[in-house]
Formats: sequence, structure tokens, C-alpha cells
Amino acid sequence: MSSTRDIDNLIEMMAKLPGLGPRSARRAVLHLIRKRALLLTPLSDLMQTVAATARECLNCGNVGTEDVCDICTSEKRANGELCVVEDVADLWAMERSGVFKGRYHVLGGTLSALDAIGPQELRIPRLIDRVATEAISEVILALNATIDGQTTAHYIADQLDGQVTLTSLAQGVPIGGELDYLDDGTITAAMRARKSL
Amino acid sequence: MSSTRDIDNLIEMMAKLPGLGPRSARRAVLHLIRKRALLLTPLSDLMQTVAATARECLNCGNVGTEDVCDICTSEKRANGELCVVEDVADLWAMERSGVFKGRYHVLGGTLSALDAIGPQELRIPRLIDRVATEAISEVILALNATIDGQTTAHYIADQLDGQVTLTSLAQGVPIGGELDYLDDGTITAAMRARKSL
Repeated sequence: MSSTRDIDNLIEMMAKLPGLGPRSARRAVLHLIRKRALLLTPLSDLMQTVAATARECLNCGNVGTEDVCDICTSEKRANGELCVVEDVADLWAMERSGVFKGRYHVLGGTLSALDAIGPQELRIPRLIDRVATEAISEVILALNATIDGQTTAHYIADQLDGQVTLTSLAQGVPIGGELDYLDDGTITAAMRARKSL
Repeated sequence: MSSTRDIDNLIEMMAKLPGLGPRSARRAVLHLIRKRALLLTPLSDLMQTVAATARECLNCGNVGTEDVCDICTSEKRANGELCVVEDVADLWAMERSGVFKGRYHVLGGTLSALDAIGPQELRIPRLIDRVATEAISEVILALNATIDGQTTAHYIADQLDGQVTLTSLAQGVPIGGELDYLDDGTITAAMRARKSL
């Protein structure tokens, strides 16, 4: 490589980001260098700001710039519904859909015997605490439809059994989905949960 | 979005990088925030350094941290061969292959009537200048095998005709390539340039 060490290091570090590899990192860095006044300097400044201000909400685990996030402080969202998600990305996905008006609880992962992740490693004790102390009427388990996600949902359901209404996301054919391309599990779930028209 | 403005802005800016879209930018930013001490702060610092030090070589157009790049100052590379490429990324690709021991000239694009890019917008006058003043025996036109790339190669060949030996990269079957997957143009080129064993 003819580029000097800082540029090489920058490429190497960018290549570690999810979604980028060595090739796309090189392209991104060249793009940044070409537009350094317009893009590289502002991006660096913004990263500095975010590095200094970003934190996890002490209550729900969402990422924001306050100790307690906007959703947890908003009175409008205190409707008694609590949506449990694995990850902040899932919370953001729910928010983009705009369908949910309650509050969230981010677990920070799923239970995994293989990776030695037990309830204490996740935000599960805090969830049990919130259900006991906040005015929560329904806990919606919006965990991923993976084995780990469903195991975690079952564990939480066991812990909260009898204290609160428990629901989970419906499973079935995704909007725009073609039967031909769906796996057997999805078709089975959609068939079992069929609705009368 | 529940994340606050700086985080949103960072996602938006990251999404503008080549190879990243809104979804992968969100994933990357969450990853960066999770590892802010290990990744976000060092990345920001490095960007600041690169923004301050990166510049184009005044001689060849390569990106580095000096006014004249390592390759242009290295005496070892003054072997009379000059490799003309469209872009710094192409120069880096050539360097990774390690096959070329001479110097480079980065045009900064290709001629394009549609986009009103003429020789003056590229580093073509500087190329003609270098051929006239440096001890160059061969100019290798390593431009992309696209229409714009080949048009530019023809233009440069016209300008330098008679002053220096002009060559271009061989065209043919790429290493590991399967005939079945190659386009007609490549097969035609490979057939025309066939070699005796």
C-alpha cells in the first residue's frame, strides 16, 4: 500500500464495522478523503460528540443522550404496555413502524447456554423489577423468532406468569411474502394461526 | 426514532458512505456506540488526523500525507515506466498486486462528454508534461475496460503518440474465470489475443 500509516489504520478500523469489509472500507475512506471538508471533518466531530454523550437508558436500555431516555420520560407512553426486545436495533425498528405507543425494555441479547449468558447478564432482573413496581398491564414479548429468542421469551414468561398479561408478536406470512419462498416453519405457523375472513 | 438528534445525524451521515445504506448505517452506529471507548473515540480521532494530513500528491494525484507521495519520491521506482490509472483506488489495487515497480499517474476520472469532463478537468495536461520532462520510456494505460475508460485511453494515446512507448493492460479471461459466465466481449478479446502454448 502506498498510502501512509494513518490512512491504512483508518481503512483497517472502518473495515471492522458491521456491513463493511476491506474493499468497501477502502472505497469509503477514499470517498471521505475526497470530501474531507464536507464529510470527514463533520463526521469525526459528530462521532466525538456521540462518543461523549451517548449512553444507555438506566431504565429500559435504549440508546440516547440522557440517563433516562425520551420514551421512558414521556408521560404519553405510559399506557401500561411494555414491549420487550432483544436489542436497541429492534426497538428502533418497532419505532419506525409507529404501531406501538407504550414503553420498551431492551434485554441486550438472549439467554444462551453455549455463550454462558444467563438472566443476570441480560436486563431480565430489571424487567421483573419494572413489572413489579411500574403500572404495567401487558408485557409484549417482541423477541426474534429464533431458537434463542424463543427460549428467552419462555423463560421471561415463566418468571412473570400470573403477574401481568403476556403476549407475543403474531407469526405468519410477512406482508408482500410469497408462499413459494417461505420456509416450512412459517407456513406451519401461518396455517395454525389462520383467521376467519 | 427514539434516539436523539446527534445519533440520528451520525446515522444519516454514515448512510452516505459508499457501500452503506440506512440499515447498515444504523447497525454500524449501534456497534460504534456499544464500543465507544474501543472504537468510536479512536475512529473519530483518526478521522481528525487524516482530515488534517491527507492530501493529493502534487505530482501523480495519489492520496497520502505528503505533498509528493512515497512512490514519486522513491528512487527505486524511477524505472522509466509510468502507469496511468483513473482513480486512487485503481492505484491501490495495482500496488496490492505488487507486479508494477514503476510510478503512477492518477487521472482523477475519465473523459465524459455527458458530464462535461474534458482533458482540463482531469490530470491529462500534467501527464503530457511529465512525459515531456521526466525520463519516461513507457506509458502503461491501465484504464478500466469501460467505454469511458477506453475513450480516455485513446485520447491519451493520440496526445502522446510518437513520444513514448504506449501499452495497455491485456484483456482476456480473468484468473479463476469460467467461460460459461463471461460476457461475449471478454471471450472475443481473449480469442483474438490467443497465445501459442
